Parts: sequence; C-alpha cells; structure tokens
Amino acid sequence: MKARITAIGNEILIGQVLDTNSNWLATELTRLGFDVENIAVIPDVRAAIESALSSAEGACDLICFTGGLGPTSDDITKQTFADYFGEPLVMDSEVLADVTAFLARRGRTALVNLNRSQAMVPKGATVLRNLVGTAPGSWFEKDGTVFVSMPGVPYEMRKMMNDEVIPRIREKFDLSVIYQKTVLTFGIPESDLAARIAKWEAALDDIEIAYLPSPAGVRLRLTLRGTDREALKAKVGERIAELDKQIPGDIYGYDTDTLASVVGQLLLGKKKSMATAESCTGGLIGHQITSHPGASAYYLGSIIAYDNRVKIGLLGVNEADIDAHGAVSRRVVESMAEGVMGCTGADYAVATSGIAGPDGGTLEKPVGTVWIAAASKTRTISKRFQFGERRDVNIARSAASALNMLRKLLLEEDPAGSEGGAQ
Amino acid sequence: MKARITAIGNEILIGQVLDTNSNWLATELTRLGFDVENIAVIPDVRAAIESALSSAEGACDLICFTGGLGPTSDDITKQTFADYFGEPLVMDSEVLADVTAFLARRGRTALVNLNRSQAMVPKGATVLRNLVGTAPGSWFEKDGTVFVSMPGVPYEMRKMMNDEVIPRIREKFDLSVIYQKTVLTFGIPESDLAARIAKWEAALDDIEIAYLPSPAGVRLRLTLRGTDREALKAKVGERIAELDKQIPGDIYGYDTDTLASVVGQLLLGKKKSMATAESCTGGLIGHQITSHPGASAYYLGSIIAYDNRVKIGLLGVNEADIDAHGAVSRRVVESMAEGVMGCTGADYAVATSGIAGPDGGTLEKPVGTVWIAAASKTRTISKRFQFGERRDVNIARSAASALNMLRKLLLEEDPAGSEGGAQ
Repeated sequence: MKARITAIGNEILIGQVLDTNSNWLATELTRLGFDVENIAVIPDVRAAIESALSSAEGACDLICFTGGLGPTSDDITKQTFADYFGEPLVMDSEVLADVTAFLARRGRTALVNLNRSQAMVPKGATVLRNLVGTAPGSWFEKDGTVFVSMPGVPYEMRKMMNDEVIPRIREKFDLSVIYQKTVLTFGIPESDLAARIAKWEAALDDIEIAYLPSPAGVRLRLTLRGTDREALKAKVGERIAELDKQIPGDIYGYDTDTLASVVGQLLLGKKKSMATAESCTGGLIGHQITSHPGASAYYLGSIIAYDNRVKIGLLGVNEADIDAHGAVSRRVVESMAEGVMGCTGADYAVATSGIAGPDGGTLEKPVGTVWIAAASKTRTISKRFQFGERRDVNIARSAASALNMLRKLLLEEDPAGSEGGAQ
Repeated sequence: MKARITAIGNEILIGQVLDTNSNWLATELTRLGFDVENIAVIPDVRAAIESALSSAEGACDLICFTGGLGPTSDDITKQTFADYFGEPLVMDSEVLADVTAFLARRGRTALVNLNRSQAMVPKGATVLRNLVGTAPGSWFEKDGTVFVSMPGVPYEMRKMMNDEVIPRIREKFDLSVIYQKTVLTFGIPESDLAARIAKWEAALDDIEIAYLPSPAGVRLRLTLRGTDREALKAKVGERIAELDKQIPGDIYGYDTDTLASVVGQLLLGKKKSMATAESCTGGLIGHQITSHPGASAYYLGSIIAYDNRVKIGLLGVNEADIDAHGAVSRRVVESMAEGVMGCTGADYAVATSGIAGPDGGTLEKPVGTVWIAAASKTRTISKRFQFGERRDVNIARSAASALNMLRKLLLEEDPAGSEGGAQ
C-alpha cells in the first residue's frame, strides 16, 4: 500500500522550522505496513495544496497532510480542502464543545470569532477530534484514496494520529501485524559488527534489519510482519537470544533504554550508589544520569575536575603523578575514580580525563586521547581510548564509554544483575 | 528567483533518518534571496529522480539535490543524472586525487574499486569537490535551470554548499545582498517581549523580524535586503541599539553566541575563573560551559551535589539549614555557591537546587521550583524560579537561568565588560 506525506507551511520552506512531523509519520506509516513513496513540503498557497490533492487522488492509498489549520488568515488548508471536495464548511457542535472546553482549561471563557471559526468543518468529512488544541482534523475518501488533514503542532498531530487516525487506518486497510524491537549495542564499530554477525544476519529469513549508528553505539532494529503478534515476538526474541551469544556483553539494552538508564537499573537492583569524577566530559555523564527520573536513588554526585588544582585538592590526585604522567594518564584517572568514591562515600565510580580538542594535543597524546576508569570498593579498571578530532563527538563518546565500562564492571561483579538491567 | 530542494533516500522515507539537510538548505537559499517553492523527499528509484529532474527543468531557477551518491549499488543518483543529461561517466583525475588523499588521511592506502568509482563524474558537469568525504558533487545547467547534486552526509553537504556551490550561485544569479543578524534575549517570555517591543517592531520598515523561542530564551532574527552590505549592516545595527535600550541587559549575545560562551568571554576579559555547584541541573551547566573550546582557561570545575551528604560534606552546607529550610531553599543554594568558591578557589560561582520532577514536589514547593545563586568574592545573589512540569525542560531552563544570573552579576560588577561579552 502506498502512502504520501505532505507538510504545508511557509515557515518550513524558509528554514525557520524543522519539519519533524514527516519523519515521525514516516516511521509510523512504515510500521503500519505502508510504502511511503514521497514526502513533500509545500507553501500555504491554494494552487500548491490543490496540486498535492489532485496528484494523490487515485495514485496512492493514503496521503497525510500536516499544517495550515490555524485560525489566522494565512492558514488556508481547511477551506482549500472543502472547496476541492465540494463540501461547504459547517459549524460542528462537538468540535465547538471541544474548543470551548480547551480554552476554558486555559482560563479563557470568552470565545472570539477566530476560536469559533475553528469549529467549522467540511460537511462531508469525518471529523478528527483535537483534545489538546483548537484545530480539528479531517478525513476524506475519494477514488480509492484516503486524505487526512492534521494540525502542524507536533504534539497535537501525534495525539490525533494515535487516537483518531491510526484506529481508522486499521479499520479501513487490511494491515499485517508488525513487531519491532531495537537491540542496543556498544563498543563494536558498525563495520566490525556487521562482519561479526554476518552469518546470524543471513539466517534472519523474513526479519528485516536496520543498522543505526550513533555516539552511544550501534542500534539494530529488527522488524517482522505477520498475523500473530505473540508469534512474531517469540521469533524475534529467539534471534536476539542467538545474537546475544555472538556478541556477549555488548548488548546493553533494548528500545528506549540508554547506557545511563541501564547503569541506574543495575545499581537499583544491587541497592548501591555511584559517583562520577569528570574532566574532559565536563558534566555530561552527570547530566545523562540525572536526565532519568529517580536518579537520586543511586547517584550521589560528581566532582568535575576540569582544573588540575581541583584534581589534586578535592580528588586527592597525587601532584607528582600529574607531573610524571600528565593529567591524561592511567594513574591520574584511576586516582580520580578512587578519590570521588572516597569523598562521596559511593559504592562505584567512573572517571574521565582526556584531550577533547581542538587544542591541547601532543604527538604522544593527540586530540581524542582519553583515559577512563571505573571503580568498585574492591577494584579499579581503566582503559585508554583514541577517538577523533571533533570536540563534541569526543565528549559524547567518552561519556558513553565511561558508562559502558561501569556497566560491564557491575555485571562482572554480579552477573545475575544482567537480566534486570538489560530488559 | 525560485528554488527547489530534493532529498533522495529510502532511509528518510521509512523514518530511519530525519532529513535536516533540507532545513539547512532552506535557510541558506532563503538568505541568498531565493523563494523556496517546495521541498521533496524521494526514494532511490530512477523514475522518481528523473521525474524530479524533468519537472524542475525550465520551471525553477535552481534545484538542489542531496543524497544517493554513496559507492554502493543502492545509490543511483550519479548514474541517473548522467543518463538524464546524456553525459557519460568519466574518471576525473582531480577527484581521484581527492579520494586518495582523503582515504590516506584515514590510514587506508589501497583503493578498492568502490573508492575508484567515486572518482567517476558525468563528463559535461562542473565537478563540486568534496574534501571531507569521497563523493564529489556536480552542477548542471539546462533550459535556464541549475541542477546541483550533493552528498547526503550533512557535514559533507554543508561544506560543499559553502565552498563550492554558494560562490557559483553568487556568480550565476543576480542576487540582492542580504544582511541577517540574530539577537539573543533571555528572561522575557515571547508574548511579553512582543508586547514590550511592539512600537519598536512597528517602526522596523523593511527589516523582517522572526521570533524564535527556545529554552535558552527568545531569539529575534532580523533580515534586510538591499545592494550595499555595509549600509544594511549599519541600518540593522541602529535598530538593535534602539532595542537594547528598550530591554536593557536582556540581550545576551548575537548569532552563534550561547549563554555559556558569553559568560566565558566575560571571564576571559576579566581574567577571572568560575566554578559551579549543581544539584537539579546534574552537570548540564558544566557540560554547556565545557562544550566551548578553551573553557579550561576560566572553568575550574564543579561539585555536582545530587545527594544532601555531598552538599554537606563537600560544599560545607549547614545540615541545620537543610533541616530547617529544605535542600531547595535560598540558604542552601547560597551556601552551595559560596562553598564551591571556597573549595576550588574560583572567583565566581553559580549553584542550583530544585525539584526537576516528576516526583518530589510538595504543595509549598511543587515540581519546577528551583533556587539559583550566583556569587562573587564580595556578594551572593539568589532567586527562586517556578518552571513547569517537564523534567527535561526544567533542567534546561535552570541551567540557562543560572548562566544568565552569573552573566548579569559579571556585568554589574564591571559594566565595561558588557560590550566585550555581547558582541
């Protein structure tokens, strides 16, 4: 089945607004089983909207429009749709009640004419309710094509798509069931990973696989279509179990997990705490950990030791070690991890010290050289990494590598924690 | 002059990749004076590319394509362009040298056939060099339309556009000069700002204004077209000087400045240092400061005191103050700022303590309550903020507000620093 996505809005064409709606819709429609044949952005111009409508009619099964539904004069999508389908705009009492209730929740009780105009809908269309904004959507059918018009505000569009459009799509079209699971790996570059799991990948049969690389590792998205969701889930689960044996320890989670959330789950499971000592990562590890609600249950805090005096004065790093080995060295980063455990009382710690760039590199330690340590009460491990030239990427990869090193330390100390953290 | 933007790539149509190239190109082309009439995403399919080429021919002045230039078999843009314009692919020795040099820098000296195929270009096209990747671009002209093909990797595309395409566009088209300046404000909500500067805005004449809100404040983008760049710059500069008087102290910078970079510039100008003590922001302030190269010249470090024991043990916060007023209080946040100055020896400090949510709120201090302090050697200021319900937004607004409070403190202590920091 063929689908198209069209965003209406001058603000996108001048680059003022990044169109994230089309990407979200593309993911959802693909998951539903549609073949998205194009995405277009067109201006708030009658002829452009008419052309999009007429070229889709009879040529695709579904076209989803976003945008141009505001109450002001530059938004012409609703009127253009009404004219194209030959339907007059009429007042819809249910929509009027929705708009009134929405505005009342925001403390506005007097409806102005602009609000009232939002409750006008094309007579023959199926109205798509909007409970989180004032612009209703609409659903038309003509010559075997479904035309859907939704607001451009991302939050309103997504809710309308989930609550009003997808159920109607499922009813209208004979869609297969789709099961999707994303496997999160860390520590193996994309090309090496592809080589290591080539045999496993070749035996995937009808499971589709997508490689999605990022600074936080390579994500593998597995997609399987069929009729019985539980059967699909079981089959994908079997393959993932096989994959886990091929790259033991390198799968850190699934779907929306992050390295920080997985480390948090492992610590919660053990009822243990952690702290960080950050130099080159400058607070990013702390930020990633504390982005997760409930982090205060296991995260005590950090010393960001950007300056060597802070490394010495607060973390107890030996000045002679800095003089002898440099701040970016095994000795210093291990002392940092142990030092922050000592002064916070944490059970575990990670530390980073590196040259993020663009300056500060030497022949022996070029930009991108980073030492990372992870420590428990009984041992400290550390490793030298050589990343690249970009400061932002070096910082991001250092933070991810540090969290992964701590994850592995937590798993090694108590392998039983693995299941709890990764599921 | 009319322009179109077309992204080629199945990965965008299935939602795997968000197309940020088109947004960037839309901004650049608009700034150059083009009227972008549509943006399209099409699959790596010959008929779709041919249709985009033929519908643009003679219908617009410029069409920019991105994507589909990789060396693998699913990338067919180059061959399709060559066939459409009736030009054979030939080996280009300059491109071959570029590809060889690029791979050598990455330590690969043996060229495989796939690499060699990257050096093949359509015979009649103007070659657009790629010095940061292996895929060259191309520039064709036919029936009054310019067709540009660039790689899909954002970093490569932007560099090619800046270095190779825009100079040729300036030579080819009679473009008006466009001067654009973005004014960065912080601390005034968008609707209040619009009301306060309504009179100023009404007198802008032919200067276009766009309001761009974000957690780091409202940006105002001013655009003026004409013939003489210096005259445009002077006219916009005059208006900005008037604006600065209307909202004194609330303009923190221009264009690519950030609150963290402006604070850094102020500190560099004074040859002073700073430290941070973060509770609810969890490291984000440190991360923002250290994202800027050279931050080590003024940033000593931070204590992330997520746990009260760290506030007491490392920052010297009085336990009785926490018991009496709570950790989210004026007394505690001021002690945190002063404490981190004491233990790092910094000249300035900021501290945050708040309830980011979703849990931890009370009737008296609901989620979104945040205390922020900024301190110098001679005084400490602090303020209570009430943000909203979303954890991520609360953390981002707290970090921005803290940096802005320190910026104002730095300016008040030495108003002469203002110009240096804000320009």
